[in-house]
Amino acid sequence: MRRRLTRKEFLTLTTKCAGCVAVGAAGMSLIGREGIAQVDLPPWPWPYRKIDPEYVRKLGHEGYWEKGYGCAYGAFRAIILPLREAVGYPYTMIPPELMIWGHGGVVGWGGTCGALLGACAAIQLVCDKPTADRLIHELQGWYTQALLPTDISNEYAQKGEFFVQKYTRPLPQNAAGSPLCHVSVTLWCERSGFTASSLERKERCGRLTGDVAARAVELLNQWADGQFQSIYVPPESIETCFTCHGDKGLDNVKAKMNCTQCHTPHP
Amino acid sequence: MRRRLTRKEFLTLTTKCAGCVAVGAAGMSLIGREGIAQVDLPPWPWPYRKIDPEYVRKLGHEGYWEKGYGCAYGAFRAIILPLREAVGYPYTMIPPELMIWGHGGVVGWGGTCGALLGACAAIQLVCDKPTADRLIHELQGWYTQALLPTDISNEYAQKGEFFVQKYTRPLPQNAAGSPLCHVSVTLWCERSGFTASSLERKERCGRLTGDVAARAVELLNQWADGQFQSIYVPPESIETCFTCHGDKGLDNVKAKMNCTQCHTPHP
Repeated sequence: MRRRLTRKEFLTLTTKCAGCVAVGAAGMSLIGREGIAQVDLPPWPWPYRKIDPEYVRKLGHEGYWEKGYGCAYGAFRAIILPLREAVGYPYTMIPPELMIWGHGGVVGWGGTCGALLGACAAIQLVCDKPTADRLIHELQGWYTQALLPTDISNEYAQKGEFFVQKYTRPLPQNAAGSPLCHVSVTLWCERSGFTASSLERKERCGRLTGDVAARAVELLNQWADGQFQSIYVPPESIETCFTCHGDKGLDNVKAKMNCTQCHTPHP
Repeated sequence: MRRRLTRKEFLTLTTKCAGCVAVGAAGMSLIGREGIAQVDLPPWPWPYRKIDPEYVRKLGHEGYWEKGYGCAYGAFRAIILPLREAVGYPYTMIPPELMIWGHGGVVGWGGTCGALLGACAAIQLVCDKPTADRLIHELQGWYTQALLPTDISNEYAQKGEFFVQKYTRPLPQNAAGSPLCHVSVTLWCERSGFTASSLERKERCGRLTGDVAARAVELLNQWADGQFQSIYVPPESIETCFTCHGDKGLDNVKAKMNCTQCHTPHP
């Protein structure tokens, strides 16, 4: 740990040194509330520059495998690292480890898919609430309907184009119908015949991590160009069920997941 | 936006000014990779100091209501702000807005409860993966079984001790049996008779946000004292179902949620 300057030490230094004031222009407050030198938090949301979704896809797959940190770390890191390269500070101040906990739908509980969680956090750093709400709604909608892992990821693996090689054959694909890890993984195991603990299932989640991060960046790039338009069409069950259960009816349900995946329709 | 110094401008300044080198001792790299003055990212995990869970509970409730940012922002901010006060930098570098997207189980989809998501991110800033995995498992287990909002929150509201007053009467409590927003909110509406869009339901989620953040801090404080012990006992169904579906059997399911809340047991 580096020692912090006291307010007095810092004032002594800065009064001896006019040039130090210019350092403030690089983003540093001379004296913070705690009486120590500190850096200004740049205003949120942070600046965005368009980045390459294919680079992000490969980083996502790599990050999934890195240190066993998994999907949420993988997806978050896959967007933060290119933004560090493209923008630099303040992205250099965010530890990508911040999102590790999302793995397996939050430490293996099977809630919202960790790749989604990691991508959401990155989107929120660069978008205000209404914009992030729209982009993340689209991302989750896409996730429930896309065949994952994508053909692109399967091809990267086969051609040895990923940054790490764990399994090179194309993997079976499925559309989860849900943003939940439990549903996504279990249905994929059912469809593919691979077990939940297999190398193939892990590699499937690794490729999916890259795919989700890449899709998030495609949406961010569209938005940066002023071109973002939602193309997600929710399943019919939501509209049907919400005729009664939504806020114009009984108003007793909150969700945007496909009702009939867990509930039997009733008259 | 402040203008960044070029590498050349900065070198000119620093060679003119020996005192500036000492500024490096306050956490600032003289020249970063991009040729601009920047601050070192402190090693992760970040330092923790014990904070007051009751202060955190009130901040969580306040943050839920702030700008309509909701539960995930509320819980994350409720832990980050006291750490800014207790530790200062680097917590001053994280925008609490980072976690807004978690509201309503990720932009209203009803996945993992946003109050949990916000608290998880704060835990991960201060704990390595194995530690965060244990604390978050405990937090989620507690969430599924606790009567929420807690008696403490109901009492704060009644006595006017919250930082914001939206609704002062005690609210009905329920144990969600699940970490998912959809299940938690829907069962609470069923139990309480209040609608999903009502002020009462929102205030329920506001109090719950404080409760979840406070519980996370209780666990962090126990861990900081070397006193953390898991007391969560998972529902029996998980062990029963995983005899066949777990990694020593068919190995086709990933989850730690209560199976029988969504699935009918079969022979």
